[in-house]
Amino acid sequence: MNPAAAPPPPIETEALIIGAGPAALFLAFQLGLQEIACQLVDVLPAPGGQCHALYPDKPIYDLPGLPVCSGRELTERLLQQLRPFNPPLHLGQLVSGLQRLPDGRWQLRSSVSGDGGNSEQEWIAPLVFIAAGVGAFLPRKESVAGLEPFERGPSAQVCYHGLPAAAAAAQHIVVHGGDAAAVELALELAPPPSAGASGRVTLLHRSPRFQIEPALQGALEQALAQGRLQLVLGQPVGLDCGPAANLAQAPEPAPQDARPALQALHLATPGDGHATLPCDLLLPRLGLSPKLGPLADWGLALERKHLPVDSATMATTEPGLFAVGDINHYPGKRKLIVCAFHEATLAAFAAAALLRPGQRQLLQYTTTSPRLQQLLGVAGASAAAG
Amino acid sequence: MNPAAAPPPPIETEALIIGAGPAALFLAFQLGLQEIACQLVDVLPAPGGQCHALYPDKPIYDLPGLPVCSGRELTERLLQQLRPFNPPLHLGQLVSGLQRLPDGRWQLRSSVSGDGGNSEQEWIAPLVFIAAGVGAFLPRKESVAGLEPFERGPSAQVCYHGLPAAAAAAQHIVVHGGDAAAVELALELAPPPSAGASGRVTLLHRSPRFQIEPALQGALEQALAQGRLQLVLGQPVGLDCGPAANLAQAPEPAPQDARPALQALHLATPGDGHATLPCDLLLPRLGLSPKLGPLADWGLALERKHLPVDSATMATTEPGLFAVGDINHYPGKRKLIVCAFHEATLAAFAAAALLRPGQRQLLQYTTTSPRLQQLLGVAGASAAAG
Repeated sequence: MNPAAAPPPPIETEALIIGAGPAALFLAFQLGLQEIACQLVDVLPAPGGQCHALYPDKPIYDLPGLPVCSGRELTERLLQQLRPFNPPLHLGQLVSGLQRLPDGRWQLRSSVSGDGGNSEQEWIAPLVFIAAGVGAFLPRKESVAGLEPFERGPSAQVCYHGLPAAAAAAQHIVVHGGDAAAVELALELAPPPSAGASGRVTLLHRSPRFQIEPALQGALEQALAQGRLQLVLGQPVGLDCGPAANLAQAPEPAPQDARPALQALHLATPGDGHATLPCDLLLPRLGLSPKLGPLADWGLALERKHLPVDSATMATTEPGLFAVGDINHYPGKRKLIVCAFHEATLAAFAAAALLRPGQRQLLQYTTTSPRLQQLLGVAGASAAAG
Repeated sequence: MNPAAAPPPPIETEALIIGAGPAALFLAFQLGLQEIACQLVDVLPAPGGQCHALYPDKPIYDLPGLPVCSGRELTERLLQQLRPFNPPLHLGQLVSGLQRLPDGRWQLRSSVSGDGGNSEQEWIAPLVFIAAGVGAFLPRKESVAGLEPFERGPSAQVCYHGLPAAAAAAQHIVVHGGDAAAVELALELAPPPSAGASGRVTLLHRSPRFQIEPALQGALEQALAQGRLQLVLGQPVGLDCGPAANLAQAPEPAPQDARPALQALHLATPGDGHATLPCDLLLPRLGLSPKLGPLADWGLALERKHLPVDSATMATTEPGLFAVGDINHYPGKRKLIVCAFHEATLAAFAAAALLRPGQRQLLQYTTTSPRLQQLLGVAGASAAAG
């Protein structure tokens, strides 16, 4: 938070993987088999990418050898498989820069997602793998204009991630959204049943129908019936702002507190109605939206938002820069996880050839190779079986 | 067996898959998702291909999402995944011919492996997929000359598969080999412990060391100690033949019985020795050896024993003929199961485009597509979850 603090030293690694979805996790495993040290950075708060963030419990039926597997289970399986190599996994970090250093390596920056670049980290690696799916999954933004100034700083009143410091003092909290994340947050903020009715927390959604499981639906209905939570139907279309009297904690107003504070939302309500909803803390939970994001600014040759690669190596036209999974394109490309696993495998072979140009590449099998079994920590198991 | 019997009618199908290993099984699944009817033919007696035939119990560590998985388990998982489509699986059949019919479809022949073409089956399909690994896995042959005439017919004395009709009457059975299949067969043919010592069954192997699990080793040692089984160390180098008196069952000699019978094997024994081993039934169990086999005679453009394919479609240069798995080659090819799964997926998409040229191909996901879930028989499951 303090811009005067010294930035952390750059992290140097042989391979940096942007993403931590299935393609990225299996790529890290294949890099491990190639004895290439890697680290992973993902904007999401948990590994698993789109599969885990968007449909953790929905079954996937076309993963080879896994007749039914949820996104959550696939993620757990891939993490378990990756355990012998245990690469550092940096979550909640948006990678925001990519440029070539004079020595030929890549330099990147990452920042904690949503904090406006206050905690930057620099990365240096000869090999960079973009396994970023359809881009960074970022919280979908409110479409109402004028909210931006309230998103930053210690007295932020609009918060897309977690809770700001000011949450405890807020009088009128509005959670906006209709999925499980929104409903769970609203229930978490509502006073306990023993505290009785309270007007402090409002759940705002465009319709009375929520995309949630029956159990959560039951909990929501109970909290509404007890008056611990208000439900308001509508869509924000404007703001009311005023002096920051309510939330200012300092005895004498600091320059920062001189800015106006968010006081209420103007809503368009069902049936062409209008309403005003008091709000000194807005917590939008509108789902995740993939953004190509910084990738679009890296000067790479994109074709319809995808990175063209050589299908034999998954290499982009930039030496040392590879792309695997939904973000890449080559003749015959299908955006399927099974194809991403193949791409990760070929990319790891190509990376090893690039990193160790003189060395002959033999195809070895984990079933029979003592070297691979040593790497996997199963050298003894094989000897006993053979 | 009767050459005058009418041959069975040709089997017509949309897609014929040659092979039943992991690539073939997952290809059949992907063809199912594309609503293409297929049948599989494999020379081996069980599905699973090389994985299952050569190392059923050895762990594989690099299948995505399956941190440790034996060839047997992988086969079972792929068969379970394929169950919704339930394609006919023809085992123990060697595909021995491929030619184009005037209507553009492919015609093939298959015969029961090892019976010398006595039971041919004809196949007709517009799409043929070669998923034959490194070729047909056939029993490794004895290297001693002159055995061929004893491999055929009802009074065969050399049998690479199962047991011939004459086995019951045999006085001197020799099982030749050093792996579990050889030892298990010798133990199965040896008289029970209650019958005491017997000179009828000999296990012939070049060394006293067997490639078997400790439990089987224990059973072998017990049978040898009890005299129910003889162990002879050596390698066949020649034959003794004589009139077929011992095995002839017919009162008057038929022309077939006029040929000489196998009576003994000449052995080279350890330490430059020689020996003669009585033998009227030889059961070689020398493992499986991949043979490119008939593939080499099909007039296809092979490159160093592999079929070049377009990496976007897995199509060979022959329209309607695809190759997936270890048999194919394209830039970047790695002979890994994970790559074969990808190849099977792209081949199924390409096959659908070829079979239904006018139809637009949309990429659908099993997680969300009602059509795919209907095909998989899980349409209800999704509705409940979503």
